[in-house]
Amino acid sequence: MKPYAFGIDLGGTTCKIGFFNTQGEVLDKWEIPTRKEEDGKYILPDIAASIKEKMAEKGVDIDQVWAAGIGVPGPALENGTVNECVNLGWGVTPVNIVLSELLGGIPVAVANDANAAALGELWKGGARGYKDIVMVTLGTGVGGGIILNSQIVHGTYGAAGEIGHMMMSTTETEQCKCGKCGCLEQYCSASGIVRMARIKLATVTRPSILREKDDVMLTAKDVFDAAKAEDPLALELIEEFGMTLGRALSLISSVVDPQAIVIGGGVSKAGKILIDVVEKYYRKYVFLGSRDTKFVLATLGNDAGMYGAVKMVL
Amino acid sequence: MKPYAFGIDLGGTTCKIGFFNTQGEVLDKWEIPTRKEEDGKYILPDIAASIKEKMAEKGVDIDQVWAAGIGVPGPALENGTVNECVNLGWGVTPVNIVLSELLGGIPVAVANDANAAALGELWKGGARGYKDIVMVTLGTGVGGGIILNSQIVHGTYGAAGEIGHMMMSTTETEQCKCGKCGCLEQYCSASGIVRMARIKLATVTRPSILREKDDVMLTAKDVFDAAKAEDPLALELIEEFGMTLGRALSLISSVVDPQAIVIGGGVSKAGKILIDVVEKYYRKYVFLGSRDTKFVLATLGNDAGMYGAVKMVL
Repeated sequence: MKPYAFGIDLGGTTCKIGFFNTQGEVLDKWEIPTRKEEDGKYILPDIAASIKEKMAEKGVDIDQVWAAGIGVPGPALENGTVNECVNLGWGVTPVNIVLSELLGGIPVAVANDANAAALGELWKGGARGYKDIVMVTLGTGVGGGIILNSQIVHGTYGAAGEIGHMMMSTTETEQCKCGKCGCLEQYCSASGIVRMARIKLATVTRPSILREKDDVMLTAKDVFDAAKAEDPLALELIEEFGMTLGRALSLISSVVDPQAIVIGGGVSKAGKILIDVVEKYYRKYVFLGSRDTKFVLATLGNDAGMYGAVKMVL
Repeated sequence: MKPYAFGIDLGGTTCKIGFFNTQGEVLDKWEIPTRKEEDGKYILPDIAASIKEKMAEKGVDIDQVWAAGIGVPGPALENGTVNECVNLGWGVTPVNIVLSELLGGIPVAVANDANAAALGELWKGGARGYKDIVMVTLGTGVGGGIILNSQIVHGTYGAAGEIGHMMMSTTETEQCKCGKCGCLEQYCSASGIVRMARIKLATVTRPSILREKDDVMLTAKDVFDAAKAEDPLALELIEEFGMTLGRALSLISSVVDPQAIVIGGGVSKAGKILIDVVEKYYRKYVFLGSRDTKFVLATLGNDAGMYGAVKMVL
């Protein structure tokens, strides 16, 4: 095995790149902006140029590079093709072939970014020591990644782990950005938590410290902070959040029965109060056989995707 | 590879055994009763004795037998241990070790029966040509099996594919036999379909040909037959059935995004009307990326488990 590899986490705003040795140690990491102009045609050339620049800086030749892995914010097939990526303006794109050509022919592996993050957490983060996990990322939306036998489950259409669009309610009338009504991320993403808080604040008259916040500025963190301060209305919101996410995770366990569930993303910074309420409802709703599933917090933050991306090729 | 192998589908009432060559052709198949007396202690010895008798009849020596696979009606771990099996009276049982010892030391692979059936359908049945499938078995209960990369997903506690206990409703007040309320099989199993029909017949006054049936004798087949005869009340019941099962399958696709969904079990004999209504709601509820999932009917009937069991070792 050649001595070096690259792990790339391509986001809608920035792209994080890690320079690794093939023992899996990160030697350097940096970010470049994601240029989405002209249907994202500059994105992969920008990444390749940045990698080549770093190689020149480090005195590394392409013959010393084993491979690169990349996580992308859209559906990625196991064969390296990205099946349209609205976020970046891409149509169907054979990312492995294009990026490999730009990098002198080294092998390139491709995954969805949430799937790559899950693999990163399994390798170097909160899920070290496990081989079968589900990771849920609670950010602006809700992402998910499924790892079985230490391998990413990509899915037929690159949509495995798209748990943010699990339809949790058949009575919801507000539309998710995917066009359906009742998706998990309408309740459990950062914006979903705020949405539910606003609905409750508007429909009940009880006092709450959340009422002191300007409605426009209300964040998911405010809701969790108020719950930590034992604000009854915020506690109710957190119970409802736990009920929905706990049930969604119980449904996922009926399918793959993982060893552990890893919770990450900005919202997961709420910590123990969040894990506790999700676990409580998970254990209530899950099939008896899976009641001992472990719950852990993600630990790699924004580096998870970069780690998982390189792990695919190591 | 030695020339012969056995596939065993152990049920709560009878046990089906297939004698195969290692090209995968079935040479003989037969059934023996499942003796559940004394915590099921006779079950594995009975199977071994029956296999040895068949070998004597065919003039086959144990040195000519490659291996055996067995599907069991309970949670089976990848390592061959059955994690308690209430149906049979078993506690935690290393079925692979016990049965191997009874069969002169040949390797024995173990799976849950619904998982084995899914593998059987992938190998020789309705899902031939696919490698990633979900099978749902609509019988007295609702069973499920997940196959990824042509391999059974067993799950950490042997509970992968236990989709009958996905909690589909948070408002259900009647209890499932698992102790929870709102499980998929309370709506979509043969008994669940009859339960929902009885509830509707008791709560609405509209006419229906289902009212001509004696309440005690009502079957899921009657409901589908009435729907085929365009009985409006039965059609409503079938829509509700499709809505619940279609949504459950859409949730499963958010996790593993399979190539195909295979529908089997006694209820699936309703055929096209059933597939059509399930597909309709699946496509409505599923994440856009997975909308092209194929739907197929199982074709092996009660032989699926026996085929899948032997496939594990071929």
